[in-house]
Amino acid sequence: MGSQRFWFADSGPLYSGRSFEIRHGGRHRHRRLELGCRTFGRLVTSGAADDQLLLRVAYDGRLFSGFQRQRSCESVQEFVEKKLQKALGWNSHIQFASRTDAGVHALDQCIILPASKSWFLKKHSKKLSRLRLYLNSHFERKVVVWQAAWLSANFSFKKDVLWKTYRYLIYNSRVPLVMDSDLYLWIKKPLDWEAMKREANHFLGEHDFAAFAKSSGREAASKASGTTRKILSMRMKRSPHPSWSDSQFIEIDVRGKGFLHHMVRNMVGSLVDIGMGKPLDVLELLRGRIRDRAGRAAPASALTLLRTKVRDSRLKVFDPSPQSPRL
Amino acid sequence: MGSQRFWFADSGPLYSGRSFEIRHGGRHRHRRLELGCRTFGRLVTSGAADDQLLLRVAYDGRLFSGFQRQRSCESVQEFVEKKLQKALGWNSHIQFASRTDAGVHALDQCIILPASKSWFLKKHSKKLSRLRLYLNSHFERKVVVWQAAWLSANFSFKKDVLWKTYRYLIYNSRVPLVMDSDLYLWIKKPLDWEAMKREANHFLGEHDFAAFAKSSGREAASKASGTTRKILSMRMKRSPHPSWSDSQFIEIDVRGKGFLHHMVRNMVGSLVDIGMGKPLDVLELLRGRIRDRAGRAAPASALTLLRTKVRDSRLKVFDPSPQSPRL
Repeated sequence: MGSQRFWFADSGPLYSGRSFEIRHGGRHRHRRLELGCRTFGRLVTSGAADDQLLLRVAYDGRLFSGFQRQRSCESVQEFVEKKLQKALGWNSHIQFASRTDAGVHALDQCIILPASKSWFLKKHSKKLSRLRLYLNSHFERKVVVWQAAWLSANFSFKKDVLWKTYRYLIYNSRVPLVMDSDLYLWIKKPLDWEAMKREANHFLGEHDFAAFAKSSGREAASKASGTTRKILSMRMKRSPHPSWSDSQFIEIDVRGKGFLHHMVRNMVGSLVDIGMGKPLDVLELLRGRIRDRAGRAAPASALTLLRTKVRDSRLKVFDPSPQSPRL
Repeated sequence: MGSQRFWFADSGPLYSGRSFEIRHGGRHRHRRLELGCRTFGRLVTSGAADDQLLLRVAYDGRLFSGFQRQRSCESVQEFVEKKLQKALGWNSHIQFASRTDAGVHALDQCIILPASKSWFLKKHSKKLSRLRLYLNSHFERKVVVWQAAWLSANFSFKKDVLWKTYRYLIYNSRVPLVMDSDLYLWIKKPLDWEAMKREANHFLGEHDFAAFAKSSGREAASKASGTTRKILSMRMKRSPHPSWSDSQFIEIDVRGKGFLHHMVRNMVGSLVDIGMGKPLDVLELLRGRIRDRAGRAAPASALTLLRTKVRDSRLKVFDPSPQSPRL
């Protein structure tokens, strides 16, 4: 842990598409750089990373092509890295808790910059408490930093993210929603609430979610992570529209340590099918492991990464807000 | 009531800016036509109006320059009349319950077409229950019709609208809201909730709201309607942000039979000033009747016309929805 670890920025096209190794936190990681036509600065050393800077951010998924860097279109990762370079001279990649799909929003995405405190203080006289304001002034309101804190160097997302909660929004009404209509999946037909709740319960616990993985099947085939995941809780809530008494809003909150690609959207898609009267049996689908038998993926723009729970003891310093957010 | 009443459409520039008289429901009304460069169809007779068609609609205020017809930019009224002409051959003006400002949204605006049932049925074989769908197919999701019903010919907004509720949304947080940020008035400084609630209570009941009228003073000067209004209820609710525990959403619902121009926005503006520590006394402001002493007008885009309560007995036919909305 005490050893020097260096952070590299590449010179763009040179490394494009190649894998190389970065030593970090005592573990080796392979990273595939997909920089395309973008050029980073020159090779820099950002110092020893005996600490890591945690940024908790929110963004509107409609503005980006997903979190992870893409070749052609702007991702949250690319945007944040570009702005961090400008604001902090940060010339390396960031790490992040969740690979949100294109169109998926986040209220609590965790981003880590493996930067040492001394490097940070040498480069920037700004205190951590001012950092959030400073970064937000660079982020054009497209990404909002709402907390900045130091984590110990041995913090890792794999070990120390206890759970994540995604929220899916449905609008069940015969008439369309006039505002923010793309933030809700609009279902015209009245949904069978009891059937949906009953079947949703079957997602709880540890299962093989192959039937709810992305249809391309690439993930299902990978042996490294497998398709077994654990759903810690599933909360479904409905509330009436403030003006139209035959219309209602439905929130589905799914909590788990990790999720497969498209998993929440596929689960919600099946629940909606069930609500509309399709005879789907979640337990049978889980057992069957066949993607095509389950419902379609629900649209991305109604999904939000709501909360990322990080192990408390790893947080050395909180941003000194009057009522400090509990992670 | 049984007499023939005719509805005129003008031939555009001919009547532009001129007042003329329309006999309606036994009463005489003066209307100022402000058609500018727009041309209606030719003069038509849409039949006797022994009934009136009520449309309850919603719209996103960001798409329009307010409800009432404007000379230069598109208002909800102009949009709806244009679409009604195309969909129903309706060649006259509509009546409406609330003159929402530019940028103000509505979930329950009431619109009346003084059209007789026989005219409607002669022109359109569509049943009332299908009318909503048919109109929504013309309204491009910019305006949503969620109920259509017949009203008796002697229904009038002045007598039969019992109250209207407006909702104002505030977001109180040190960090900006990442989604739908223009639907909320963002206040960074923590608001003094108790002071706001205490002062809000003073708005209840009948008062002279001259201090909360539009600053231009035109309305305050008009003697016809005066500046006395009655606030029937005022509900303030706050709820935490789902992810950021030091952030909260505030809803302020104001109910009254009628409102002055900008009145809700001016009341909210003063409450926010009070919440931020400005020593304003609502009772004193009401007594003083001086607009400049009260707070600034809060922005329009965070205000919504939430509900319009229409006297039940006037509604002859409900749209036969499974759970018919209660007006």
